[in-house]
Amino acid sequence: MRAGNRKWVVIMVGLPARGKSYTARKVARYLRWLGYPTQVFNAGELRRATLGAGHRADFFDPSNRQNQRVLEGLARRTFDDLLEWLGREGRVGILDATNTTRERRDWLRERCREAGYEHFFIEVINDDARTIEDNVRANKLASPDYEGMGSEEAVRDFRARIALYERAYATVDDDEGSYVKVIDRHETMIVHRVDGWIPARVVGFLTNLQVTERPVLLTRHGESEFNASGKIGGDSALTARGRAFSRRLANFVDSRFGAGGIQVWTSTLLRTIQTSELLGRDRREWRSLDEIDAGICDGMTYAEIGESFPGEYEARTRDKLRYRYPRGESYLDVIQRLDRAIIELERQREPVLVIGHQAVLRALYAYFADVESERIPHLSIPLHTVIELTPRAYDCIEQRYALEP
Amino acid sequence: MRAGNRKWVVIMVGLPARGKSYTARKVARYLRWLGYPTQVFNAGELRRATLGAGHRADFFDPSNRQNQRVLEGLARRTFDDLLEWLGREGRVGILDATNTTRERRDWLRERCREAGYEHFFIEVINDDARTIEDNVRANKLASPDYEGMGSEEAVRDFRARIALYERAYATVDDDEGSYVKVIDRHETMIVHRVDGWIPARVVGFLTNLQVTERPVLLTRHGESEFNASGKIGGDSALTARGRAFSRRLANFVDSRFGAGGIQVWTSTLLRTIQTSELLGRDRREWRSLDEIDAGICDGMTYAEIGESFPGEYEARTRDKLRYRYPRGESYLDVIQRLDRAIIELERQREPVLVIGHQAVLRALYAYFADVESERIPHLSIPLHTVIELTPRAYDCIEQRYALEP
Repeated sequence: MRAGNRKWVVIMVGLPARGKSYTARKVARYLRWLGYPTQVFNAGELRRATLGAGHRADFFDPSNRQNQRVLEGLARRTFDDLLEWLGREGRVGILDATNTTRERRDWLRERCREAGYEHFFIEVINDDARTIEDNVRANKLASPDYEGMGSEEAVRDFRARIALYERAYATVDDDEGSYVKVIDRHETMIVHRVDGWIPARVVGFLTNLQVTERPVLLTRHGESEFNASGKIGGDSALTARGRAFSRRLANFVDSRFGAGGIQVWTSTLLRTIQTSELLGRDRREWRSLDEIDAGICDGMTYAEIGESFPGEYEARTRDKLRYRYPRGESYLDVIQRLDRAIIELERQREPVLVIGHQAVLRALYAYFADVESERIPHLSIPLHTVIELTPRAYDCIEQRYALEP
Repeated sequence: MRAGNRKWVVIMVGLPARGKSYTARKVARYLRWLGYPTQVFNAGELRRATLGAGHRADFFDPSNRQNQRVLEGLARRTFDDLLEWLGREGRVGILDATNTTRERRDWLRERCREAGYEHFFIEVINDDARTIEDNVRANKLASPDYEGMGSEEAVRDFRARIALYERAYATVDDDEGSYVKVIDRHETMIVHRVDGWIPARVVGFLTNLQVTERPVLLTRHGESEFNASGKIGGDSALTARGRAFSRRLANFVDSRFGAGGIQVWTSTLLRTIQTSELLGRDRREWRSLDEIDAGICDGMTYAEIGESFPGEYEARTRDKLRYRYPRGESYLDVIQRLDRAIIELERQREPVLVIGHQAVLRALYAYFADVESERIPHLSIPLHTVIELTPRAYDCIEQRYALEP
């Protein structure tokens, strides 16, 4: 019997090319990873799907009454889709549209109220011309709206579209309720009357979000004595093969990063600490990176678990995500305790090497690669492999290095 | 080998009676509880200790050059004390003074830089006349400065003192570095370029801080089968006596709060859930409220631990705060995982009843009662007792109810 299952509408606000979609997707991915069904609803996508792409700035001119009615209708349909999805299965619906007028926002608030959903605003404000220009060039020119158009012409057109929105833009006011304003590429944040567990998570996440591109490297510890004997959990030392991997890992990191900055994070378990020892760098030991707690099954082989606790074995096979070892943890438990590590990873401006464990790395990997929860317990994270992830605005580049000794 | 042991100076900024000291003390208590040696250095206290109390508004007039030199000297000494303490043993020093001019803040920043310490500002802004008035009446009239003076006269004098500061007040600017502005009793926060683990914790804490006064009730579960047989840990059910306590607890809560709002939080362990069952209210089960993990000693009596692991038993007796059960947790580990629960407790506007366990409740109690870390493992949290804590601006009221069945 759990209290507090309120559903939330997150209303994005901001001029075009300010980074709304970037922020909306990052937030959505984070909330999904935490276990809240979250989806972004984008009015532009619906417009292109309905009317076809290729609309120029003049199409968005507020003085063109007919087009405005069409755009209005699309905005309503996008929001209807969001509400419908929230009613059916969603927990958090994010409306990714400009919503730059007070009238529009009042209308949205009223509809949230009628439907019995909570809401808050995320307004993205970037007035630096350079940032906007970069954003237009990096993301907007690839839009189907500009297919086949020269890039300078497309930039000019998009600027004209922005100018049309600027005329009617009103920033979110204190009397509109809870809001977060994200200003100048997350340099400044204004948080107003934010209340509730999910909004508090979003604020903590946005406060620490960096826009710097830097890789995160994930690797399991070298082979341990328990690995070699097929036992789970425990706190055993590395085998000779595991130690050989730790040497290869040190060489890899040296040749990849030289004397340069890379942070090393380990769990508090011996096998990850031993794996880090030849790196010759400071390490940070995180208890929250410790392997999933197998409770009463700790130290057993899967065959032994199947024999001693056949019911447990079967329950785990049926739902590996939610299955909690008696006196131990489930994958969902692991994700909750990794929240802090994810926030810290987002905060870092330099590369980080995480030396962890299978279940923990599955969960971290899932955050960066936006893997749906059900698939997390089945991801492949083999021993003696470095997974280098470079999160970018809308995707994540992955490279794997096999360092089998 | 842990990375990142930077020392921090937190510079408070704001006009008199805005709530600087309240915020400074709350932050200090929170950081101390997390395990960072933190101390508040208050210039007003040093002034009264050095010059005696009883200074009227005209003493603070910036045009009185001689007094300004005296005040300046006191401010420097307060800051010297802070730097000296930070060099010796501190981790975070909080300078609780007005620091309302740019010149003063530039000087402070330069001194932090010279000393090799990081810094950030917390500016407290409250322009609501009512809040200021309440603050003056509640906190300032009790100041030794106004001993023996009529309250209306004292209020007038304090208002005159504020007016003198207002003339020279300049809010912290973006080019002064990291800052947090706390506006209108924490309703709005502006966070600028905040970076680093400790500042990030402070921001998360301040975002969720409520100024509403409401009690937090702590109680252990009713007697469990393991309690009765002297074993630690486990996940046993309540004894008949434990069930009798759960009835008394339900009666107590009903008579104390009626049908009114009180939230019920339990751990995920059977004995706390069973204890909550007769309350007839929604409960929230928190894994982070589970009892300290005794690792390999789970399920043993202390006598058995002493016999089987004499070295462990002795190590635990020597330093109960830092001692970590093999494969289990230390009290310091428990505090780290309770961070989230504390932030959630601070966010609540209605009373909360926490049904927990001895070690976990010791840690929660220590936060509210500001108990120094070393004493935490020795606090008395008996079975069948409700501890009602009401945190106020500068202290915490405690009442204990024995509900022994």
